[in-house]
Amino acid sequence: MFPLGNINIGSGFWGARQATNRNRTLPAIYHQMKQTGRLDAWRLDWQPGRPKPHIFWDSDTGKWIEAVSYSLMNYPDPGLEAQVDEVVDLIEKAQQPDGYLNVFFTAVEPQNRWRNLRDKHELYNAGHLLEGALAYHQATGKRKFLDVLVRYMDHIDQRFGSKEGQIRGYCGHPEIELALVKLYHATDEKRYLDLSGYFIEERGQSPHYFDLEANRRGDDPQQYWAKSYHYCQAHMPVRQQNTAAGHAVRAGYLFSAVADIAAENDDAQLREVCRLVWDDLTEHSLYITGGLGPARTNEGFTFHYDLPNETAYAETCASVALVFWAYRMFEIDPHNRYTDVMERVLYNGMLSGVSYEGSHFFYANPLASYPNISPCEDWSGIRTQRYYRRSEWFECACCPPNLARLVASVGRYFYSVKHDRVYVHLYNDSHARLEVNNRRVQIQQRTNYPWESTVVLTIQLGQPQELEIALRIPGWCRDFDLEVNGAPFSAYPINGYVPIRRRWANNDEINLSLQMPIERMASHSAVRQNAGCIALQRGPLVYCLEEVDNRAHLANVIIPRQAQLRAIGDANLFGGIHVITGDAICREPHDWHGGLYQAQSAFSYAQSTFEFRAIPYCFWANRDPGEMRVWMRET
Amino acid sequence: MFPLGNINIGSGFWGARQATNRNRTLPAIYHQMKQTGRLDAWRLDWQPGRPKPHIFWDSDTGKWIEAVSYSLMNYPDPGLEAQVDEVVDLIEKAQQPDGYLNVFFTAVEPQNRWRNLRDKHELYNAGHLLEGALAYHQATGKRKFLDVLVRYMDHIDQRFGSKEGQIRGYCGHPEIELALVKLYHATDEKRYLDLSGYFIEERGQSPHYFDLEANRRGDDPQQYWAKSYHYCQAHMPVRQQNTAAGHAVRAGYLFSAVADIAAENDDAQLREVCRLVWDDLTEHSLYITGGLGPARTNEGFTFHYDLPNETAYAETCASVALVFWAYRMFEIDPHNRYTDVMERVLYNGMLSGVSYEGSHFFYANPLASYPNISPCEDWSGIRTQRYYRRSEWFECACCPPNLARLVASVGRYFYSVKHDRVYVHLYNDSHARLEVNNRRVQIQQRTNYPWESTVVLTIQLGQPQELEIALRIPGWCRDFDLEVNGAPFSAYPINGYVPIRRRWANNDEINLSLQMPIERMASHSAVRQNAGCIALQRGPLVYCLEEVDNRAHLANVIIPRQAQLRAIGDANLFGGIHVITGDAICREPHDWHGGLYQAQSAFSYAQSTFEFRAIPYCFWANRDPGEMRVWMRET
Repeated sequence: MFPLGNINIGSGFWGARQATNRNRTLPAIYHQMKQTGRLDAWRLDWQPGRPKPHIFWDSDTGKWIEAVSYSLMNYPDPGLEAQVDEVVDLIEKAQQPDGYLNVFFTAVEPQNRWRNLRDKHELYNAGHLLEGALAYHQATGKRKFLDVLVRYMDHIDQRFGSKEGQIRGYCGHPEIELALVKLYHATDEKRYLDLSGYFIEERGQSPHYFDLEANRRGDDPQQYWAKSYHYCQAHMPVRQQNTAAGHAVRAGYLFSAVADIAAENDDAQLREVCRLVWDDLTEHSLYITGGLGPARTNEGFTFHYDLPNETAYAETCASVALVFWAYRMFEIDPHNRYTDVMERVLYNGMLSGVSYEGSHFFYANPLASYPNISPCEDWSGIRTQRYYRRSEWFECACCPPNLARLVASVGRYFYSVKHDRVYVHLYNDSHARLEVNNRRVQIQQRTNYPWESTVVLTIQLGQPQELEIALRIPGWCRDFDLEVNGAPFSAYPINGYVPIRRRWANNDEINLSLQMPIERMASHSAVRQNAGCIALQRGPLVYCLEEVDNRAHLANVIIPRQAQLRAIGDANLFGGIHVITGDAICREPHDWHGGLYQAQSAFSYAQSTFEFRAIPYCFWANRDPGEMRVWMRET
Repeated sequence: MFPLGNINIGSGFWGARQATNRNRTLPAIYHQMKQTGRLDAWRLDWQPGRPKPHIFWDSDTGKWIEAVSYSLMNYPDPGLEAQVDEVVDLIEKAQQPDGYLNVFFTAVEPQNRWRNLRDKHELYNAGHLLEGALAYHQATGKRKFLDVLVRYMDHIDQRFGSKEGQIRGYCGHPEIELALVKLYHATDEKRYLDLSGYFIEERGQSPHYFDLEANRRGDDPQQYWAKSYHYCQAHMPVRQQNTAAGHAVRAGYLFSAVADIAAENDDAQLREVCRLVWDDLTEHSLYITGGLGPARTNEGFTFHYDLPNETAYAETCASVALVFWAYRMFEIDPHNRYTDVMERVLYNGMLSGVSYEGSHFFYANPLASYPNISPCEDWSGIRTQRYYRRSEWFECACCPPNLARLVASVGRYFYSVKHDRVYVHLYNDSHARLEVNNRRVQIQQRTNYPWESTVVLTIQLGQPQELEIALRIPGWCRDFDLEVNGAPFSAYPINGYVPIRRRWANNDEINLSLQMPIERMASHSAVRQNAGCIALQRGPLVYCLEEVDNRAHLANVIIPRQAQLRAIGDANLFGGIHVITGDAICREPHDWHGGLYQAQSAFSYAQSTFEFRAIPYCFWANRDPGEMRVWMRET
């Protein structure tokens, strides 16, 4: 990934999302962290009898600093930077003489340090702090936070390993593995890469570390609350794994790191593991929105083709993790099968995690919404028409700062450079300074994507240079036109990218036009929940119907196969979007006598036609509460 | 209800179910109760450090004895009776000098007697023991068990009430209320009726008893685990209630007792409460199978028209309770709207609770089944094709003996006698001795109902007598023929019953023929889960498709509106049943290239036709595991 400071997304779809992220989301997260004691907890002044800091809190700080740092790279903000510096001072003071750094296991349970790697997230927290420190250093040049984390990583590097006296373990929640690879890139110190690799290789080995440590604590490993090590992808050694199983966020972080290690070590076996798990996920268990992990119970995977819509968990963090993983998959296997998924997640199941105005968040991202008695919230069965809405915060608040760091850094995922080839993955108004074969190449994109299908790319160079620009032709696009400097350019995509190899001169221009009809998407026939239903998609955007634009009882609405569908710009909605409209049928009894059930012979159906209106899924639940559906009946 | 010994169901549908109940279910329950320590717990020899008896265990004993007693009324069995006597001896010895009788709060936590009525089921257990004692006395004439329970009830009558020193409370789980009415009927002592009425009137009054007792325990009432007193129908005084809310079994027992009290005291307001709650339930929240309480979380109600199929909880006990309630509703408001529901529950959602062979049980009764990761059982997300199957037993084993006592006593629900009118509710081969205006009237039914539509009723009398026989014309029946002694008899149903008033002579014969076509049932348009779907029903039986008779991916099967449906006898299946067959369409892509989602423009659908086969829902999950659906797509 090239330095984020080298790409500027000034406007367009992602420009607006980043502005909201900067102006509303980051301050909202800071406010919540302050209010809930997450920041002050770094003072380590917890006293018995007071509420305990949560074991996850350190990671919230880490992700917030990371998000702020990415934002600062393009939008310096001395006030924001001062906020971070203040927190960094606290963190520095919280570091123990031996380098250890963790609020809970310093202030509350120092006797339990490293005693329950399976459940207690110590290394996970360390990883998130490290990512924050690396980003802050990159953004500001300030070393203090990074120095603290390097000391901590050195401590971890000493404590963990297979040598005598070391802990032969790894974290129940993968995260530090990918952070250590970033530290390796920043420092060129290979031992950090090796430590990451060590954690990955140890995972799931026998005798099982989580059994051993449970026995040491006097716990029965058989009584593991999550029932199986599938939950944390430790049910077998990573090199033997080939399925997406367990907790979805953990899987996303783990296989991101595995892909990193495969790339760094040119490890064909790990590359194959990544591909197998990826294919298992994307062919059986991925929502059309890019959400993953259907079940609330394990926050993760169930069985193939099990994709319930109303009860979809599809945690925001899992979608964030899938973006990380998808980009890394492309790095080890350049193909649009990965970047197509990356785009799908970014525009749909990840972005739905935050409100349009920026300060409310979804943890779960269902694909249909009805009045809901959440099993976690209400045992009473009180019958209020309560719809699922975004929250200002969560007790376990992993999602808001995770989403914020990804929105702030989305520019990182626009390009990959390999030798003299520049892959263009994403399209949005933007300006990027790339380094290709040690020469600077700038690419200016002008487009109203994803609303409109034309992208103009201007190549800026000091002097003419031969290189290849490889443009992603998304899987959803069945036809495209391409011109270079006004002349038609004929080419076929290779692995999903159209290569344009030539000697480029300054201000050479590429005109790419991606056909973007409204598609009626169908599911694999084994997805029982979508039988007889379609979803509407245009470009990368999956659409949904909301009650506020349509009517209640969306289950009775049918979008006939022959309906003419139109994409229409609405400048007043969400800063200007395209809605999809067309004639839908509503089929309901017209002479139902009351009661719940009747023989069909006792009543008749009435069909009415109305013009439905669908909006992009990522913008749902921003207006009046009501029903929502992605998958609509078609017959 | 007339004495159960006065009706004999020798054969036919219910005769076979009762034989299985007697020969397999009752012994299986005894075996499980013995194995799990439920019976030996009455020795009160629990020692600290050993597993504690469960607070519900007493009720299991009570219900098992009740079920055995009902069976003994028609099928004397000295061995079975000796089993009960042995248990009764233990129970008698467990009674405390003051009359108190409860395993847990005598052997384990004597200091906590009556301290947590909200959660601890003490009065609930007492009610079930009392029902068992009354039934056993009725069946055998032996008084010992009943004497024990009368002492206990007298103790309770002294402890509870509004006088100084009494506990002004009531049970979180209603049950004793309806048991006390039975005791009143058996003894004619009005104070038992009054105590039942007292419990009902106190429920939900302010200051709230459950608040007061929580405070006395040092607990915060706001921290009630079930969040709201809706859970136990104590959110407001009973006389103000008008909705079916909270835990479904509790609601069923409570309103059964409220209907009893309304009848005994001719209380118009309580009658109206019952009607309002009944209508709320049956118009908004009842599965077509007679299941109720869709949510596992509260084992109860959610919101109107929320009837998920796969995740339906629809506890067996709730269906049992609904039969009790429905019969009592008829007693206070004679109309087939109640007995139709009673029949629906008996033949479908109640009976599905036990396997055909009789020793495996469902707690929850879903209306669709797919491989399932039960949130209560498995956090791992391991992808096995596990289907929901019946269990031999449950830690909380309320359902098996509850179902067993209802099957054993189903004859009780066949008739009601009011003055000189005999209501005939249910049809099955049977012989009943009724007392009408102090004269004995016997009714012999000969029929192959519910498979065939003809019922022959022979009236047997000592001497000719004028009386009215009122035959239920089920709501599902749109036309019927009636003959008396071979001559057509023309009459319209009144409140769902055809009255035949005449001077009957011995061996007069009624021939009733109920048209029983296969009906395609539709749901109210607000039931989103059934949109575009139908269920097949013939007579009282709701049908379902199982994979074993059809194919997998039942979601892709469509039963076209024009399909000819046939009911065909299959003598080899479940002792001889009628299956429903017809031509169904299976619509699936024929050129799907793989992957989860595709634009419809990229593939085409293939339609194949096959002869589907549906079986009665009550017999599902008795053969090879696989998918099951009640609601099938029709277009």
